[in-house]
Amino acid sequence: MINLGVVGYGYWGPNMVRNFMETPGSKVKAISDLIPSRLEKAQNRYPGINVSTNYEDLVADPGIDAVVISTPVSTHFEIAMKALKEGKHILVEKPMTISSDQAKRLIDEADKRKLVLMVDHTFIFTSAVQKMRNLISSNELGDIYYYDSTRVNLGLFQHDVNVIWDLAVHDLSIMDFIIPEKPISVSAIGLSHVTNQPVNIAYLTLFFSGNIIGQINVNWLAPVKIRRTLIGGSQKMIVYDDLEPSEKIKIYDKGITVGDNNPDNIYQILINYRTGDMWAPKLDGAEALKIEALHFIECIEKGSQPETNGESGLRIVRMLEAATESLSRNGKPVNL
Amino acid sequence: MINLGVVGYGYWGPNMVRNFMETPGSKVKAISDLIPSRLEKAQNRYPGINVSTNYEDLVADPGIDAVVISTPVSTHFEIAMKALKEGKHILVEKPMTISSDQAKRLIDEADKRKLVLMVDHTFIFTSAVQKMRNLISSNELGDIYYYDSTRVNLGLFQHDVNVIWDLAVHDLSIMDFIIPEKPISVSAIGLSHVTNQPVNIAYLTLFFSGNIIGQINVNWLAPVKIRRTLIGGSQKMIVYDDLEPSEKIKIYDKGITVGDNNPDNIYQILINYRTGDMWAPKLDGAEALKIEALHFIECIEKGSQPETNGESGLRIVRMLEAATESLSRNGKPVNL
Amino acid sequence: MINLGVVGYGYWGPNMVRNFMETPGSKVKAISDLIPSRLEKAQNRYPGINVSTNYEDLVADPGIDAVVISTPVSTHFEIAMKALKEGKHILVEKPMTISSDQAKRLIDEADKRKLVLMVDHTFIFTSAVQKMRNLISSNELGDIYYYDSTRVNLGLFQHDVNVIWDLAVHDLSIMDFIIPEKPISVSAIGLSHVTNQPVNIAYLTLFFSGNIIGQINVNWLAPVKIRRTLIGGSQKMIVYDDLEPSEKIKIYDKGITVGDNNPDNIYQILINYRTGDMWAPKLDGAEALKIEALHFIECIEKGSQPETNGESGLRIVRMLEAATESLSRNGKPVNL
Amino acid sequence: MINLGVVGYGYWGPNMVRNFMETPGSKVKAISDLIPSRLEKAQNRYPGINVSTNYEDLVADPGIDAVVISTPVSTHFEIAMKALKEGKHILVEKPMTISSDQAKRLIDEADKRKLVLMVDHTFIFTSAVQKMRNLISSNELGDIYYYDSTRVNLGLFQHDVNVIWDLAVHDLSIMDFIIPEKPISVSAIGLSHVTNQPVNIAYLTLFFSGNIIGQINVNWLAPVKIRRTLIGGSQKMIVYDDLEPSEKIKIYDKGITVGDNNPDNIYQILINYRTGDMWAPKLDGAEALKIEALHFIECIEKGSQPETNGESGLRIVRMLEAATESLSRNGKPVNL
Repeated sequence: MINLGVVGYGYWGPNMVRNFMETPGSKVKAISDLIPSRLEKAQNRYPGINVSTNYEDLVADPGIDAVVISTPVSTHFEIAMKALKEGKHILVEKPMTISSDQAKRLIDEADKRKLVLMVDHTFIFTSAVQKMRNLISSNELGDIYYYDSTRVNLGLFQHDVNVIWDLAVHDLSIMDFIIPEKPISVSAIGLSHVTNQPVNIAYLTLFFSGNIIGQINVNWLAPVKIRRTLIGGSQKMIVYDDLEPSEKIKIYDKGITVGDNNPDNIYQILINYRTGDMWAPKLDGAEALKIEALHFIECIEKGSQPETNGESGLRIVRMLEAATESLSRNGKPVNL
Repeated sequence: MINLGVVGYGYWGPNMVRNFMETPGSKVKAISDLIPSRLEKAQNRYPGINVSTNYEDLVADPGIDAVVISTPVSTHFEIAMKALKEGKHILVEKPMTISSDQAKRLIDEADKRKLVLMVDHTFIFTSAVQKMRNLISSNELGDIYYYDSTRVNLGLFQHDVNVIWDLAVHDLSIMDFIIPEKPISVSAIGLSHVTNQPVNIAYLTLFFSGNIIGQINVNWLAPVKIRRTLIGGSQKMIVYDDLEPSEKIKIYDKGITVGDNNPDNIYQILINYRTGDMWAPKLDGAEALKIEALHFIECIEKGSQPETNGESGLRIVRMLEAATESLSRNGKPVNL
Repeated sequence: MINLGVVGYGYWGPNMVRNFMETPGSKVKAISDLIPSRLEKAQNRYPGINVSTNYEDLVADPGIDAVVISTPVSTHFEIAMKALKEGKHILVEKPMTISSDQAKRLIDEADKRKLVLMVDHTFIFTSAVQKMRNLISSNELGDIYYYDSTRVNLGLFQHDVNVIWDLAVHDLSIMDFIIPEKPISVSAIGLSHVTNQPVNIAYLTLFFSGNIIGQINVNWLAPVKIRRTLIGGSQKMIVYDDLEPSEKIKIYDKGITVGDNNPDNIYQILINYRTGDMWAPKLDGAEALKIEALHFIECIEKGSQPETNGESGLRIVRMLEAATESLSRNGKPVNL
Repeated sequence: MINLGVVGYGYWGPNMVRNFMETPGSKVKAISDLIPSRLEKAQNRYPGINVSTNYEDLVADPGIDAVVISTPVSTHFEIAMKALKEGKHILVEKPMTISSDQAKRLIDEADKRKLVLMVDHTFIFTSAVQKMRNLISSNELGDIYYYDSTRVNLGLFQHDVNVIWDLAVHDLSIMDFIIPEKPISVSAIGLSHVTNQPVNIAYLTLFFSGNIIGQINVNWLAPVKIRRTLIGGSQKMIVYDDLEPSEKIKIYDKGITVGDNNPDNIYQILINYRTGDMWAPKLDGAEALKIEALHFIECIEKGSQPETNGESGLRIVRMLEAATESLSRNGKPVNL
């Protein structure tokens, strides 16, 4: 039985607690939050649970094996480092930290102590994303041409992070997980429409050494909610729409084949278009966070690396960091 | 009665001929095309029409008042200039020319000779685009925040122009027509997935002096067809979907209002979200090209400037030119 | 403070308990269910709540003011009658009873004892349905022409009721609530595709004395989920799609106007088509069951009649009863 | 070379002429219509074509091999019979005739003279309908459970036929073509909302001897256009949406399996739900009328029976006739 402490009981923390409570082999023993009314709510829901407004109580508790961190990103490093030093395994919300330097130091600390360090990139644990990864790794799509994602809505303005750290982080983690090649530089352009507030609309471009391009369109001020990713390959293409109730992934047997040059008419022979069936594979409907919770517990028990380990968290933070730098330089690409 | 000659009878030329044949006050007298089988087809359809494989015959015909040019863009300048010098009014397909220098010279020639010079930016003559312009000019949307367009499909690879000159040209002309402010620079990033072929996927960003950002996503290798533009304003927002059979424009009474800072909780008071009704105005279903043809004839008869005159054609060519330059410099913004 | 007892803690009961727990002025004191594991689940969630496998304990408890009945429909009458006789107010799940005779007896008993008798027709408390009622009562739609609803999916086969009692009951209650005219007869046709199981696909037609027709299409064996109602009026028409995340109601300014007979061409003058704007009013997003719970408590406190009182529950049961009779007579209309 | 005469050049006739003009092996020699301006239009389009306001001229012309009839349904019989008696092959628009008696007499006459008699049920020649027939005949769907179609829009009121003869005729012909079993009776309910005008909203039910039910919902007064058919089978189910630009057919690997009775809990074991992949086969995009025209010419040349021969036309007319009778008897089923 793994005993957990959860730091932060605001928007996402309650989902963490609920899922770990229902995960066989784990139990949430303690919750901390700065706001007492939240702790009261937690106690009403889970009588007998320990609560504290000071996360250090929780981190120091020898009866706790692992700490889940659901606090604002600026606090992740300090809390995670203290917990690691107390010998706790860590599951930290995305983005992992506010800098790649912080992320590296957490990785080192966890390595040194042989503790599990996992980042809560929840989408990785959806069956849609797992399916896309399988399709790509089994070469169903052929060579990957592009990853093009739109993630917009009339969203809650965040005050401590901009729209890239809030929304693009999801696309970056999905792209990182399903596409084996890694980007070499990133460019970002954005705008803030509210004085003294973070950038609320942004466009990221990811450059790769090969023939791939990544593009992410994020926007807190859109009239409609869109969660749609196009992935182009030389053999097949995917439309991934997270808002579809059941057919989240559609695979199109479409593309072009490049033929020989026709000396008579160079304009028509060269490229042939191919259009075949469309196919929407059945996806498992399990809640991603439930699978993620189980995975964390298993990694602790087996001492194995999580699918979203510190290294993957660091890669995402590095991309966010570089995007932020590019943003301030009007879109100049920044190396990764 | 305005007598017209149409140069080019490939993909778009037949639509031009049909519409001008049906426009009161105009008649197509002659057609030229390099390919004889096309001329034969035209003659079968329009018995008695003059045809020639040499456009100069048509341009020199004193019985012709105006010339419609539906040929590859690289030939526009030469044909248009010859026709202007013969005193013909011009309607030239988009993009107007391959360089802004060429566009300027055509404008000067037309001005000098007091001839109508019109560019076939067909979308401008749809009731959807006219409606959006009216909504913006009457300040229904408030301050414009962004223009974000996606125009992708498994499209015909063009061999003489890249995807920007082929697809983004539509968005640039619509944006230019409906948004009063003009962009000051443009950035473009793209990729060619087929050796020795033009760029087939590209992302354009338009920078403005004020608080506006423009973004255009074009792709010849997409699994699905998307024609969707989001326009954000401080008061209202538009979703324009050209593939919708009837409700092409939806106006959302949504946005944010920025309130005072709450000293107690700066995170929640500052920004209020506003969500109201959605409204899809009835749009006139007339074929855009029919309205455009009528407009061209009226401009000739009245000696007035078309809505898509040489100056607007030049602005679009200048943006395409700058985008191409930016493309070759890996997205570095190029001034307009 | 109204103290409630909830009988039945299966699929819907937990939602009832949660909502009444969160409704100011009410508190759930006791839960009963035949299955002990469900009671255990309830106690884990709500420590200190009274539980029993015998609903009579709950009904007899003098500390309980009102009873919520979330059990199979065949048990509604007995439980409700006992509770009324103990002086409890009643909120009973839909359909109210298995016969109109039972429904009448409950109404009489509640009347005699001046107790609130309310039926849980949850959709009535959605802002979509309330909005449609307002639109119709304010004559926005003109004369009502038809109510045409499709409610199909791969649904759970019920064993004690057929698809009409399971799904059409929703449409009947909505239609009853928003259309002032009442049907005079009903016809139903259906089929069971599984031996010894209830009818799983059915079509109901509602006849009115005036110019209205009602049609309800229900199906447990459909490949996709559809929840869509068309309401036609002489002035405007509504499309109500309950699966739309935000724009559940769309109002179309469409219709026909009947003109004079043209002696020259009687085929074209008589009827003119009118197509105007479409409009999707903003709807309040509150959970219907929350509003319903509040309404029940208010009716108890004020001694007033609920919007979904026993009489409305009876009308629905009478329609279900008549539909069942028609079903067995191969669609012969049965008077109401 | 088959020479054709086309009787009727109103809405559909021009499509017939265009397609036969482009079909190898056929040529339209003559057109007749009561309205001279239509004939003028035809002559402008097809210089040299023979025209007449009297169809008898065309029917009597010995240079004409086959007659296409695109006139109001009430005139079909007379024209077709005269043409058959003159030894012409016939392609007659749907519905074939206004009565099954008329249809039988045409079949007899054509049989006696060994002439081709074909009915223009155009949908049969779409690749979507052909694909569905193949899926059903190859038993992909298992046992057919239902055919449920909605065909509604703000449609042109017809003055000589009601909405069943105008719209349901399409569904009846598709159902007849793809489902091997034939209905044994039909019920129809409908309403006219305009005084002295035909029924503009109707619901048809088709009864079969086996476990199948057919339902057709047609409406000239709907706010939106819907063309959607659900076909349920014991193994798979189809959604056929004719308005989808490319994926008109979606095949769902969904259904139920009926297991053994569980003595402990009869409610949960009996029926298992199965949900698998969805698949949209690529469909040929050829114009249905082009394929139909080719088929007619081939049947004449080979002396073979068309897929939509007189017998199939008769079956549809018989169903329409019975539906009309049922309509007048308030939905009482009428045997076929």
